[in-house]
Amino acid sequence: MTINILFAGHVSRWPDYREPLETALRAAGLEFDLRPEFADPAQVDYIIVAPNGPISDFSPYRRARAVLSLWAGVEGLIDNPTLNQPLTRMVDAGLTEGMVEWVTGHVLRHHLGMDAQICATEPRWHPVAPPLARDRPIGVLGLGALGCAVAQSLSRLNFPVNGWSRRDKSIAGIATRHGDTGLRETLAQSQILVLLLPLTPQTENLMNAERLSLLPRGAILVNPARGQIIDDEALLAALDRGDLAHATLDVFRQEPLPPSHPFWSHPQVTVTPHIASETRPRSASEAIAENIRRCEDGKPLLHLADPNAGY
Amino acid sequence: MTINILFAGHVSRWPDYREPLETALRAAGLEFDLRPEFADPAQVDYIIVAPNGPISDFSPYRRARAVLSLWAGVEGLIDNPTLNQPLTRMVDAGLTEGMVEWVTGHVLRHHLGMDAQICATEPRWHPVAPPLARDRPIGVLGLGALGCAVAQSLSRLNFPVNGWSRRDKSIAGIATRHGDTGLRETLAQSQILVLLLPLTPQTENLMNAERLSLLPRGAILVNPARGQIIDDEALLAALDRGDLAHATLDVFRQEPLPPSHPFWSHPQVTVTPHIASETRPRSASEAIAENIRRCEDGKPLLHLADPNAGY
Repeated sequence: MTINILFAGHVSRWPDYREPLETALRAAGLEFDLRPEFADPAQVDYIIVAPNGPISDFSPYRRARAVLSLWAGVEGLIDNPTLNQPLTRMVDAGLTEGMVEWVTGHVLRHHLGMDAQICATEPRWHPVAPPLARDRPIGVLGLGALGCAVAQSLSRLNFPVNGWSRRDKSIAGIATRHGDTGLRETLAQSQILVLLLPLTPQTENLMNAERLSLLPRGAILVNPARGQIIDDEALLAALDRGDLAHATLDVFRQEPLPPSHPFWSHPQVTVTPHIASETRPRSASEAIAENIRRCEDGKPLLHLADPNAGY
Repeated sequence: MTINILFAGHVSRWPDYREPLETALRAAGLEFDLRPEFADPAQVDYIIVAPNGPISDFSPYRRARAVLSLWAGVEGLIDNPTLNQPLTRMVDAGLTEGMVEWVTGHVLRHHLGMDAQICATEPRWHPVAPPLARDRPIGVLGLGALGCAVAQSLSRLNFPVNGWSRRDKSIAGIATRHGDTGLRETLAQSQILVLLLPLTPQTENLMNAERLSLLPRGAILVNPARGQIIDDEALLAALDRGDLAHATLDVFRQEPLPPSHPFWSHPQVTVTPHIASETRPRSASEAIAENIRRCEDGKPLLHLADPNAGY
C-alpha cells in the first residue's frame, strides 16, 4: 500500500529535498506518495518537519505514525502540545562531519593563535611557536552524537578533552563527568570550551556569569549549539574584564543576529552566521528513509526525542 | 669513559637545551661532558649542531662519531664539504605534532573559509555552509616523517589526500604517487596543496609558474617547508591573475621576511613567522640521547641524512 509522506520543512527547502528524498525512499524499497501538501491531513502516514516549517497544529494528522525532524535541535517542536506522534531528531552523517570540521577548525585556530597573522596589517615578525595540543585542555559540554564526535576528533589531535553531559557517559580517551560538580570541574580545566548541548529548560542560560567565571583566565568559548545557552550580557562582561580572551559564536538568541548587536563589533567576538553545520539533503534523506523503513517493519524508531529530557 | 659532547646549536639556544640534554643523556645511561665549547676539537666525540650554529669547518673534529642536527632540515649542513662524519636529521615527536597541528589548522581554516568571518568589519549575515571535507581533495608534497603524519591527520578528518614523494611510498588511506607524471596528477587534483618537502637541488623552485598552473583554479597553497621551494614571482603572478585564491606561507627565502616584501601586504597571502613547528628541547634532547646511546652500543644511527638525496 502506498505510504503518504508530507514534506513540512520550510517551503524553500522542498526543491533541495524532493529528489534526494525520493531517491532514498525508493532505495529503501518503499512505495510512497511524497508531497509538500495533502488535501486531507488524516491521510498522511509520516510527516517530515522542521521547526521553521508550516505546521503548528499536529492534531489533524491523526494517522501519522511518526514526525521526522530535518533538524538536530527539536526545541521548537518537542514542546508543541498538539504533537502526540513519536518525534525523531535528525542524526545525519553529513551534519556530524560538518560540525566536527567546523569545531576542530576553530579550536585549532584559537589554539594556534592564527588571528594575529590572518588579520595582520603590519609586517611583524614575532616568531613564538604555540604550545602543543597535548598541553591545551579542551572542554566539550554535551556528549550526544555531535559532542561525542567532536570530542573524539580533538582527542585524535592530542588535545586532552574533558567532556560533560547530563547523564553519565563513557567515551574512550575522554575524561567524562556529569552533574553539577562535574560541570564545575570541567569548566575549571577548559582553556577552550565548546558548547554542544541541546537547548532545554535546563541548558537555557547555563553559561551565566557564575559558570563563565569558573573558566581559566584567558579561556575561549566556542558555541555552535544554541544561542540561548549563553547569557549574552555575562559573556560580554567577562570578555571586557579580560576573564575570557575570545568567543566564537555561530548561534544567537535572534537570527540573523541584528546589525546593532554588540557581538558584531566586539574585537574579541567572532560571529559566524549559523554555518557550523547544516543538514545535507542527501544524507538526511537517507536517515529519514531508514527510519520510515524501520517503522513499516515494526522496528523501533531511531533517535526518538524524549519529551522528559526536552530533546 | 666520559663522552665529550659539543653543543654547537645557535648560542642563544644553549640555556634552553642544557638541562633537557643533560637529563636525557643521563636517562640514557651515558657518562658525558656536555659543553658549548671544547678547547681541543679533536677531543669531541659527538657534535650537536644547527645550520645557524657556530661551526663552518668540521675537519678539526677528527674523532667525532656523529653530527646530530637539532633541525629537521639539514640543507645548510649536508653540502658542507668539511662534514665527513655521519649526519643525522632531527625527527622529534614534538616537532611532528606541532606541524600536524599547524597544517591541519590552516587547511581547515581555508576549507571552512574562516577568514571572511574572522576579519569581518561589517555585520554581514550570509549563511552558506562550506562543503564537507570528503568533497575537498588535498595534496601533500613530501611524505617524510612530517608529510606522512600530516597526510594521515587530514585523512582522519575525511579529506581525500593525494600524496607525492620522490620515491614510491605506500601509506594506508592516502593516494600516493611519485615521479614527474605523478606530480602533475597530484597537482591537478589538489584544491589545497601543502608543501612538506626538504630543500634540495631537485626541490628548489619546484613550484614554478608551470607547476603552479597545474593546480585547479582557486587552489590554495600552504608552505611550512622551505621558502626556496616556491618561485615567489610566479606565485604572486598566479594570485594576481586569480588562478590561486590564497597562499599561507610560514617560510621564506629570507627570514625574517623583509618588511618591504610584497607578501606582507598582499591580501591573498598570509605570512606566519616560521612558527609552523619548532624542535622542542625536551623531546629533541631525548631523540639525540637515543642516537648517541645507539652509536655507543654499535647500533646504526637513526634518521641518517643521505648526501645523494640531499636530506
